[in-house]
Amino acid sequence: MINIMIYNEFVHETEDDKVKAVYPDGIHNAIKSFLSKDEAFGTISCATLQDHRETLSKEALDNTDVLVWWGHMMHHKVDDEAAARVTRRVLDGMGFVVLHSGHACKPFKALLGTDTDKLRWREAGEKVRVWNIAKNHPITRGLSETFTIPRDETYGEPFGIPAPDELIFLSWFQGGEVFRSGCTWNRGEGKIFYFQSGHETYPVYYQSEIQLIISNAIKWACPLERICIIDRGVDNVPALEKY
Amino acid sequence: MINIMIYNEFVHETEDDKVKAVYPDGIHNAIKSFLSKDEAFGTISCATLQDHRETLSKEALDNTDVLVWWGHMMHHKVDDEAAARVTRRVLDGMGFVVLHSGHACKPFKALLGTDTDKLRWREAGEKVRVWNIAKNHPITRGLSETFTIPRDETYGEPFGIPAPDELIFLSWFQGGEVFRSGCTWNRGEGKIFYFQSGHETYPVYYQSEIQLIISNAIKWACPLERICIIDRGVDNVPALEKY
Amino acid sequence: MINIMIYNEFVHETEDDKVKAVYPDGIHNAIKSFLSKDEAFGTISCATLQDHRETLSKEALDNTDVLVWWGHMMHHKVDDEAAARVTRRVLDGMGFVVLHSGHACKPFKALLGTDTDKLRWREAGEKVRVWNIAKNHPITRGLSETFTIPRDETYGEPFGIPAPDELIFLSWFQGGEVFRSGCTWNRGEGKIFYFQSGHETYPVYYQSEIQLIISNAIKWACPLERICIIDRGVDNVPALEKY
Amino acid sequence: MINIMIYNEFVHETEDDKVKAVYPDGIHNAIKSFLSKDEAFGTISCATLQDHRETLSKEALDNTDVLVWWGHMMHHKVDDEAAARVTRRVLDGMGFVVLHSGHACKPFKALLGTDTDKLRWREAGEKVRVWNIAKNHPITRGLSETFTIPRDETYGEPFGIPAPDELIFLSWFQGGEVFRSGCTWNRGEGKIFYFQSGHETYPVYYQSEIQLIISNAIKWACPLERICIIDRGVDNVPALEKY
Repeated sequence: MINIMIYNEFVHETEDDKVKAVYPDGIHNAIKSFLSKDEAFGTISCATLQDHRETLSKEALDNTDVLVWWGHMMHHKVDDEAAARVTRRVLDGMGFVVLHSGHACKPFKALLGTDTDKLRWREAGEKVRVWNIAKNHPITRGLSETFTIPRDETYGEPFGIPAPDELIFLSWFQGGEVFRSGCTWNRGEGKIFYFQSGHETYPVYYQSEIQLIISNAIKWACPLERICIIDRGVDNVPALEKY
Repeated sequence: MINIMIYNEFVHETEDDKVKAVYPDGIHNAIKSFLSKDEAFGTISCATLQDHRETLSKEALDNTDVLVWWGHMMHHKVDDEAAARVTRRVLDGMGFVVLHSGHACKPFKALLGTDTDKLRWREAGEKVRVWNIAKNHPITRGLSETFTIPRDETYGEPFGIPAPDELIFLSWFQGGEVFRSGCTWNRGEGKIFYFQSGHETYPVYYQSEIQLIISNAIKWACPLERICIIDRGVDNVPALEKY
Repeated sequence: MINIMIYNEFVHETEDDKVKAVYPDGIHNAIKSFLSKDEAFGTISCATLQDHRETLSKEALDNTDVLVWWGHMMHHKVDDEAAARVTRRVLDGMGFVVLHSGHACKPFKALLGTDTDKLRWREAGEKVRVWNIAKNHPITRGLSETFTIPRDETYGEPFGIPAPDELIFLSWFQGGEVFRSGCTWNRGEGKIFYFQSGHETYPVYYQSEIQLIISNAIKWACPLERICIIDRGVDNVPALEKY
Repeated sequence: MINIMIYNEFVHETEDDKVKAVYPDGIHNAIKSFLSKDEAFGTISCATLQDHRETLSKEALDNTDVLVWWGHMMHHKVDDEAAARVTRRVLDGMGFVVLHSGHACKPFKALLGTDTDKLRWREAGEKVRVWNIAKNHPITRGLSETFTIPRDETYGEPFGIPAPDELIFLSWFQGGEVFRSGCTWNRGEGKIFYFQSGHETYPVYYQSEIQLIISNAIKWACPLERICIIDRGVDNVPALEKY
């Protein structure tokens, strides 16, 4: 059973009527709702900006297999120590599924080391076509070669990421942009998946393909052991003599 | 002409007679000495722990094409803002050649995002055999398939790095260890090369193969333009309409 | 249930008493024997040089999830059409686990495109130390950071492979060589794993770590669907109009 | 001085008036024409389907640093031995720049090992937007972040290539497709660049950005030494004793 934690900033949904209309209980609960139907998943907890100092405690993170992260305008309000706890847990094996504007959150930036907050963007409600370029990958299980998102925010290259270990999705946007919209990285013992779709003003997380991708990604990112520490020796003995 | 900055911690050489005997003017001057003979190189400046707040100023870094870094026991004493300036410059195009125990320095850790300070090690003066597995790469220009370092510190896997973009050297150590001893990464617009050899108590930087590798790496890491900034647009205009 | 096919050249074991003493029923049966104890595996079939034109038929391959390959001196005697059928099946999703001197077999060379038959080697019965550099990978599940093979053939870099998608194991050899001894590649929809250990004159395939690696690799290489064909459209209709 | 060979099928231009109108002297001469203005280039030779058995002789290839390849409908008419000579030369260091429908040529397929001939395509004269996602790469020297090709054939993912070592360009097509339009691979000691643009019915090779990309790619692909052979030893002597 995979234990999941969903972090959602949960500010737009409380302040902006347009967003509230789409996600009345918050994006985290929309995601929790579809994940709850999958028997592969165990405990599904939630954290928000308001409570994250407690909900992203060391103990909670130690009991988490995969952390899903959605944030947007308040990345700078996330506590540095909480962000450092997340970063540490990913290096020690916790899976990390980063959604949409989560690309600018502190742990993702710290783990990748580059300007992951830099990309082109435009809120124009354009049509998006997602292309699956990794058919035999666990993250695309059950998906066809392409699908449409009727309206979403536009993201465009150049995206300030290091070269992904695997490129899973490429997206086409009506206005002329393209984007590496599904990427994986291994960092330490943790597996990271970034997925671009999911602006707060569109019902993207109610779309079946998006739900499948997030569910698949959580299963893919789940570590073999919840906490995975490498033994590098501390005794200064040559391998030839020791083993 | 390539402008080079060499950072050396320069503490061992002033405090430890054994090290002083090998590098009386400091490791930085040993490196500067052989680089000075190559006409491809322009200004070669040096920085040490003691003066790095000034010598690694924004202006100095803006005039640097490639920064070479050697440090060991005093990484924590490096100023956070100076480290951040280095990190920023690499993302904006400055080459970064990290030597030996420099793997634990702040900018290298920040750029790679993982536990780059974690590896096996042993100060036993063992024989090292370096294997070149990228013959047609600029960094190995003029090198044969393998060479020996008579005595050096032993490093061993697992090394806590993200998968390198290119694996250039693998090293064999007498006591049973192996190490990914030459690795490259692209981060932002900057090119990074890590090379494992070069403990302070052995005359490794006087060895011709090592000198060739460092010179080659600097030429490889030099950016096409000294400062390389990406235009990602700020005007929210669809690419179709704009270009 | 994963359907497995094991190809073994099966010539050494019939002609060389030294090999016969180690593998009296052939390497394929030694491998089949330990795989048979794992409930994850379904049908386990065998093919040899003598019968491979029939045992590696299209129908047999279509019913195979993962093909394990051991060969040595008779790669040139493998039928070109049979080799082409294997290559095709890997591109369409079949997993491919290539062992030891199988690096020079026709399908592996065809799939990777380079001089995979080129490496250093020496039959000296040296001690081998295998280093696991991918702890949280399905292929290393249950393995520690390092283990020893008491005696095996020595392989050495430079190995004529394209850069692996994932580097899993590095090996150290007593005589001074190192080798990328565990590598993965995705080719088409198929997953490929090469593992270096296993010379015919040593009881390597009776060693528990080796058995674990091969079992893990088969599970890792098994495709999501046995035959996985990509739809690229044939109707020349723009994606915008079609979907 | 870089010695260049340009292979062009040269059939469309002789049989199809529409193509002849765009490239009256053949695509190879259009490419040769702009390359000839660059002083970095030495001898620039041409080969066509009709003469390639002689023009792609071993001697000619041994004197070539970089081979540029354009072909379309007659890949199957290319002599197997000539294709094998090209493949061998790339593994031994010759650069290989493959253009547009050259993705299906024999040497490119042999070097990459996958279904490089498989992709979506549509001859609809659509607008193409090329995005440069590797600003500080020699192949993009002098290019901005994006440019337009007014009309070209549409290619679409999934493209049957192995993951490129470097992804340089992504293209957006009017009809909803995206494509990894600029990719590099290292194979053996040779460097390979594939570039998607350049259908025979459009004046793409007269466009300044395209000319710059091809010139840059040739410089990037040029080997350090024209023929680059790896020494792997033949004497079975342990590295420890030999070096």
